[in-house]
Amino acid sequence: MEHYYAVIMAGGGGTRLWPLSRQDRPKQLLKLLGERTLFQIAVDRLAPLFPPENILVVTSAAYASAMRQQRPALPEDNFVVEPAPRGTAPAIGLAALQVRRRDPSGIMACLTADHFIRDEARFRDLLAAAAQTAQQDYLVTLGIAPTFPATGFGYVQRGDALGTFSVFEVFRAQRFKEKPALPEAEAMLADGAHAWNSGMFVWRVERILAEFARQMPDLHQQLTAIEADWASLAEVWQGVPTTTIDYGIMEGAENVAVIPAKDLGWSDVGSWESLLEVLAPDEAGNVVIGGKHLAVATTGALIHAARQGPRRLVATIGVSDLVIVDTEDVLLVCPRERAQEVRALVEQLKQRPDGEQYL
Amino acid sequence: MEHYYAVIMAGGGGTRLWPLSRQDRPKQLLKLLGERTLFQIAVDRLAPLFPPENILVVTSAAYASAMRQQRPALPEDNFVVEPAPRGTAPAIGLAALQVRRRDPSGIMACLTADHFIRDEARFRDLLAAAAQTAQQDYLVTLGIAPTFPATGFGYVQRGDALGTFSVFEVFRAQRFKEKPALPEAEAMLADGAHAWNSGMFVWRVERILAEFARQMPDLHQQLTAIEADWASLAEVWQGVPTTTIDYGIMEGAENVAVIPAKDLGWSDVGSWESLLEVLAPDEAGNVVIGGKHLAVATTGALIHAARQGPRRLVATIGVSDLVIVDTEDVLLVCPRERAQEVRALVEQLKQRPDGEQYL
Repeated sequence: MEHYYAVIMAGGGGTRLWPLSRQDRPKQLLKLLGERTLFQIAVDRLAPLFPPENILVVTSAAYASAMRQQRPALPEDNFVVEPAPRGTAPAIGLAALQVRRRDPSGIMACLTADHFIRDEARFRDLLAAAAQTAQQDYLVTLGIAPTFPATGFGYVQRGDALGTFSVFEVFRAQRFKEKPALPEAEAMLADGAHAWNSGMFVWRVERILAEFARQMPDLHQQLTAIEADWASLAEVWQGVPTTTIDYGIMEGAENVAVIPAKDLGWSDVGSWESLLEVLAPDEAGNVVIGGKHLAVATTGALIHAARQGPRRLVATIGVSDLVIVDTEDVLLVCPRERAQEVRALVEQLKQRPDGEQYL
Repeated sequence: MEHYYAVIMAGGGGTRLWPLSRQDRPKQLLKLLGERTLFQIAVDRLAPLFPPENILVVTSAAYASAMRQQRPALPEDNFVVEPAPRGTAPAIGLAALQVRRRDPSGIMACLTADHFIRDEARFRDLLAAAAQTAQQDYLVTLGIAPTFPATGFGYVQRGDALGTFSVFEVFRAQRFKEKPALPEAEAMLADGAHAWNSGMFVWRVERILAEFARQMPDLHQQLTAIEADWASLAEVWQGVPTTTIDYGIMEGAENVAVIPAKDLGWSDVGSWESLLEVLAPDEAGNVVIGGKHLAVATTGALIHAARQGPRRLVATIGVSDLVIVDTEDVLLVCPRERAQEVRALVEQLKQRPDGEQYL
C-alpha cells in the first residue's frame, strides 16, 4: 500500500508477566507464545502489508540493541530510539518526523509491539480500512469490540456511522473514556456503543503533526528542534514531559474515527490469565507453551515452560484453573483468577535484600 | 555398646517420590530434606551408638557405588552387596553372616535407609532398649505407636508386658497383621493394642540364623554355601527366592517382642504428603526444602526445590495444601491429598515414547 508506514511502539516495560518479564526483558522481547517473541510476531504480521523499509520501530535506549538483534531484517535506520521513555505522545511525535522525512504524504499506523492478535489476516484488513479512513483526514482509533466489562482498558464511544470499508464499519468517535469502574464498564458493554481503545492509531503524518502543533505546542516546538538537528535529541528530550497520546491529542481532537474490530482474537496480554482467554486450549482444556505436559485430572491450566526448553516436563495431578510459569530461576504457581497479583510478589521482591536478581 | 551391630538395609527402589526419585536414584540416595541424603542421615544418626566398623550396609549392585560415594567413612568391607534384590529375608541373612564373622556373640539391628526420624536421640534409646531385650533371646520388632488408621503399613499386636527398658515398655508380640483394610485399621488404632511394624528388627545373630535354619531351611543352606565360599555368591543368589523377613520368619517365630515407640517423629516417607506430616512448617504453615519461597496467601504447601539449588525461587499466590516438587527436568504440582497419584504419572510415562528419560 503506497505511502503507508507502520510504526511499532516498543518502548514499554512492566512486570505484569513476571517472572518471565523482567526489568531488562520486557514483554515484547519475550517468547511468550513459544517460538518467537511478541516483537518478532508484531513485525511478522505486518510483512504482507508493509515492505521492511516502511516498518519503523520506536523504542527506548534500554531495549534498542535487543530489538535490533531480534529483527535484523529491518533497516538499521528504521529503529527510532528515545533517549528515555516519555509516554506515547512524544514517541509518536518522534516517529512522525521520521515518517515525514521519508514521505510527506505518508500515512502512519501506530501499532503495539506486545499485543497478541490471533487473526492476523483480519488485522491487516483492519489496517487497510483504517488507512482508507485516514486518507479522508480522520484520526483513526482501532477499537476492539468488548467481550467482557474490562476495567483495565480505556473505551471509545462511537457516534455517527461514517461508512464501511471492506467488512469494517467506521464510526465517528464521540468520546474517549479512561479506565472505568466496573458498573460503568458493564453499562458500556451492554449499550453496544463502546469499543475498547486498543492504543493503536492510524493517521496522515501531516494531520497528526498539525494536531501536535495545535494541542501540544511545546512538544511540537521540541520536535521541530529535533527535526532540524537530530544531534540535539538527547538534550531536547530531557525537557519533554511524559504524556500519552490519548490524553495529549485524542481526547481534544476533532474528526476522530473509531473502527470497532470484532473477532480479531486480540489481547493486550496484560496478565497470565489473559493468555488463557485467547489461546486455544488442548483437548484437556489446558494451554501449554513450551515444554511438555503430563497430567492426571488437570483442566483450565496455563503452563508456560518455554524458557526452560523442550525437555522440561511439567506434571500435574488434580489441579484446575492454575497458572504455572517456569523460568530458569523462578517458578510461579497461582490460580488463574489471582494471576494479577504477581504485582504483590514483585513488590515483595523489591523489599528483599536478595530480590533484585529476580526482578 | 559391645557386640552391637547396625545393618542398614538400603537396597530398595521405587518411584513413590517421583520426580525426585528415579530408577537409578532411589529414595535413600536423595537429598530429600535438603542437605544430606536419607542414607547419609540414616548413618549419621547411628554414629553416637555404633563405631563405623560396626555399621554395615546391605544394598544391591545397582546402588552400591553411589552408596560408597556418599559414605566414605564406613569401611569398604562393610558394604554387603546383593547381586540382585531378593527381599528382606535374604538380605538380612546375608548381613547376618557378615555380623557373625565379626562377632559370633553379635546383636544386629536391621534398620532402614530411607525413613525419616525426627527425634534421633530417642531412636538411639529405643535401639539400646531393643538390644537389651534381644540379649534375652527375643526377636525384637521396633513398633511405631500409630497416629492414624494407616492402610499402608503392617501392624503388630502386643501381648503380655515383658518389662521396661529406659522409657520403653516391651511386650510380647502376639500377632503380625499385613496391611489392613480401613475398618480394620481403624479398629486397631482404637484398641490401643497394636503398633505399626516399622520393618526394623533387633536380635542376636545366632538367634536369627537359627530361625532361618528352622523356618527357611533352603535359604539357610544357601547362606551356608555362601559363607563357605563368598565367590559363589552370584551363582547361589540366582536360586534364592524373593521373601520378606515378616513372612519368612517373623510370623512363624516364637519369643517375638515388640517395643511400640511413641513420639519418634517417624515416617516412612512413602509419599510427598508424608513429609508434610513430619516436618515442622514455617510461620506461614508451609514446608520448604531447598530453594527460596516467595508467597502471597499460601499455606499448607510442600515445596521441594533442593535439586535446582539455593538460587531457585518458588513463588506462590493463593494456593493451599499444594505439593510442588521442582527438579532439573521435571516439575510436579498436585494437591497434597493426591500426592499418592504420582504412580499414575509414572505409569503414563512408561507408555510414552519419550517417557524413559524421566523415570
